[in-house]
Amino acid sequence: MTAFERLMAYERDTQALSQISGRLGWDQETMMPRGAASQRGIEMAALEAVLHARRSAPEVGEWLETAQAPDEVGAAHLREIRRSYERAVKVPGDLAKKLAQVTSEAQGKWAQARADEDVAAFVPVLEEVVALKRQEAEALAADGELYDALVADYEHGTTSAEIAAIFDAMRPALVDLRARVLDRPAPRGLEGKFDEAVQMKLARKLARAFGYDMDHGRVDKAVHPFSSGSGLDVRITTRTSESDPFNCFYSTIHEVGHAAYEQNISRDYLLTPLGRGVSMGVHESQSRIYENQLGRSRAFTGWLFDQMKDSFGDFGIADADAFYAAVNKVHNGYIRTEADELQYNLHVMLRFDLERALMQGDLEVKDLEAAWNDRFEADFGYAVDKPSNGCLQDVHWSVGLFGYFPTYSLGNVYAGCLHEALRQEVPDLDAQLAKGDTSAATGWLGQALQQHGGLRSPKDTIAEAAGMVPDHAPLLNYLEAKFSAIYDL
Amino acid sequence: MTAFERLMAYERDTQALSQISGRLGWDQETMMPRGAASQRGIEMAALEAVLHARRSAPEVGEWLETAQAPDEVGAAHLREIRRSYERAVKVPGDLAKKLAQVTSEAQGKWAQARADEDVAAFVPVLEEVVALKRQEAEALAADGELYDALVADYEHGTTSAEIAAIFDAMRPALVDLRARVLDRPAPRGLEGKFDEAVQMKLARKLARAFGYDMDHGRVDKAVHPFSSGSGLDVRITTRTSESDPFNCFYSTIHEVGHAAYEQNISRDYLLTPLGRGVSMGVHESQSRIYENQLGRSRAFTGWLFDQMKDSFGDFGIADADAFYAAVNKVHNGYIRTEADELQYNLHVMLRFDLERALMQGDLEVKDLEAAWNDRFEADFGYAVDKPSNGCLQDVHWSVGLFGYFPTYSLGNVYAGCLHEALRQEVPDLDAQLAKGDTSAATGWLGQALQQHGGLRSPKDTIAEAAGMVPDHAPLLNYLEAKFSAIYDL
Repeated sequence: MTAFERLMAYERDTQALSQISGRLGWDQETMMPRGAASQRGIEMAALEAVLHARRSAPEVGEWLETAQAPDEVGAAHLREIRRSYERAVKVPGDLAKKLAQVTSEAQGKWAQARADEDVAAFVPVLEEVVALKRQEAEALAADGELYDALVADYEHGTTSAEIAAIFDAMRPALVDLRARVLDRPAPRGLEGKFDEAVQMKLARKLARAFGYDMDHGRVDKAVHPFSSGSGLDVRITTRTSESDPFNCFYSTIHEVGHAAYEQNISRDYLLTPLGRGVSMGVHESQSRIYENQLGRSRAFTGWLFDQMKDSFGDFGIADADAFYAAVNKVHNGYIRTEADELQYNLHVMLRFDLERALMQGDLEVKDLEAAWNDRFEADFGYAVDKPSNGCLQDVHWSVGLFGYFPTYSLGNVYAGCLHEALRQEVPDLDAQLAKGDTSAATGWLGQALQQHGGLRSPKDTIAEAAGMVPDHAPLLNYLEAKFSAIYDL
Repeated sequence: MTAFERLMAYERDTQALSQISGRLGWDQETMMPRGAASQRGIEMAALEAVLHARRSAPEVGEWLETAQAPDEVGAAHLREIRRSYERAVKVPGDLAKKLAQVTSEAQGKWAQARADEDVAAFVPVLEEVVALKRQEAEALAADGELYDALVADYEHGTTSAEIAAIFDAMRPALVDLRARVLDRPAPRGLEGKFDEAVQMKLARKLARAFGYDMDHGRVDKAVHPFSSGSGLDVRITTRTSESDPFNCFYSTIHEVGHAAYEQNISRDYLLTPLGRGVSMGVHESQSRIYENQLGRSRAFTGWLFDQMKDSFGDFGIADADAFYAAVNKVHNGYIRTEADELQYNLHVMLRFDLERALMQGDLEVKDLEAAWNDRFEADFGYAVDKPSNGCLQDVHWSVGLFGYFPTYSLGNVYAGCLHEALRQEVPDLDAQLAKGDTSAATGWLGQALQQHGGLRSPKDTIAEAAGMVPDHAPLLNYLEAKFSAIYDL
């Protein structure tokens, strides 16, 4: 076997073991008996140690030195294996161990601090996490900002300066649009109770309508919906709340976006470094375009309105226009995960600017709460009432996920670009969506983007599919047009 | 760290990874989407390779050379680690690989041959498996019969000669008892339909009644019921058939016997070599005593009769005595897994004698069908009608499980011994079982046997708990008394 073939064979087993790790994560959130947590922790750590040893194995470095890619795809494989290998060997083992240990404890302390509304209790913990993540970034960084090295874990090939340029251009427009919308009379929202078993039945129908392949996946319930796995086994979860079926339906469509991406990657890439979604941002572009640009469109909600009437009878919404307004209702709120399509990005940009400043040393952890509250009031026009609605609301920082937040909004920006291209590609899209038929849209996304997996960089993946360098203008134009129509601006 | 401590730390991770492998097996039978099988195969093989490398790692051999056990339990740990290490290094890698490959293909060919009722198609496949298993046994055997080396994988410390002595003594008595019972009028069996959701509800109640800990387990459905996992996460499966609720209930109790054994092993042994049931035979003793001596007793079936009336209303069985007879109805049949408590062991002994002869070279694969059919008619009094009811009925041989069959009946023999001791220990057992209370019985088994895990050899585990060297007399006496009463012999 050549060095290239050896690498690929070795990598296949590493990818397979990594899939197992993901499957255990799924099990933990859906099936695992509650008394099994401590044993599962030991099992996961043992598997993680195996994976880390494989990713940083000296023979991988040796094979990489001599391996010759047979073609362009082979070159992409080598590029991804090299990236993973360098990531694994650059961070000293002691630091990695310390980070794992500190973030594991920090998560519990964050949960307690949030329950107690006690920022002061969390400050020293977060200071430690920030210090360690800065050390990690120093170990990883070749040049540029420290923060860039962390962003690269989730969106490689994109700098924080590039992200900041996009976000800074979007922010005033979104603040302005939000103010104009909330100045108008609020549409009627959903009221009443909706049987949860019936919700799940309709959720499965929606999943199928968006092309989710049940032969290579399944739908279960979890507290926080997620998608898990790559290739031939990609499972999603959703949740139900008797009073809020939209949560169930749009969580489902969102996760189907993630899962369909994984399911539609070329089978040639199965269990290779290219056989997974290329980045968090591109992943989020798929979940968001499924959920928002398609799922919350006037055309598709018309179909969904009929489905809901079939499932639940008359539920107090007069017609499809009123239903569309209810689905897309803009409302004040502190919590990112509950935000509507318009305001969501403002929540994310706030976090991006703050965590970037923390990593650059421009903001100290002790000043985080004040900085958060100031920024929130500036963008949303009202004050944070308590830390659990403010800087303690998300788990991310406690577990060391710095550089992750911006990918949520990058995904929206990417989705905006893709949606513009899709509308050109499929001129009668609305006529299809109005019949609940997403196949032209999801088929185009599969062809233009999803099948390629990790072949190209995240940025190039979007550029190739959308035919443009990622830009915020399509998203802003789309939001302006959509909410102007709904709110009669 | 001392060599002993290093070994124990290393072993903990090996056990943890082995638990993961078991969990994936569970997933495969209960949750996995059907299109995921090929990817799962690669994942399992990758994990199996990691496990094999760990079990046969040279450092394990080095640590074993110098490790000093601090106490008796430590000595048992070392004994078990040594046994596993020697098992792993004795079989040449090429042979192990060849066996995995051949048995994997043989299973498919067996299934096809069984569907086609075509023994001739299976003969060359089985010849290859037998030849490889003999090679494996030669690599493993220190002295004694080749077959003993295979039995040791499932019941270490027990020779096939010892097993043969027990089985040969039992066989004529069972053949005789069977003939006398089937000479009597058959009791009425169950008729009608029983809602499967209601069956599952009662199955969960039965699981709890037998002490199954739902905080560290869960009950799902699978085609073939099984128990999976050790320590804090031990899951069981059962099945339902509308016309046969006994299948669901007694499969559940049987698997609870296996699972309770794993759950009740001392937490001090968690993820150590002693933290799993010590052998297949001892495991089966627990599943069988739960299922038969307790679950099919006159006392417990009285309680179950009331439960079934509560669940299903009048279902055509007049009273608790008639219900007891229905639960324990003896009936002709070809299939081992469908056999009643009385005849089951005759099915097993047949397989034991034939596979022992195959391994010893006293029987050739081409003569297997005739040998099976002769023996079957001798013991059961009627001829095998087709291969799927004869020598093609079980998957075991195709996948190389030689030495496994006898543990089913050894388990029954052990259960007989334990039941005799239990009756002495808990004189009013029947009064408790009549109330559906198994706690004294399962509590005694937990104390006397289950908590010790792999501390002692299988034989000593039974001897310590039952206070006697394993012997067939208690089982025979129990069966004779039970069926004499039911059938008025």
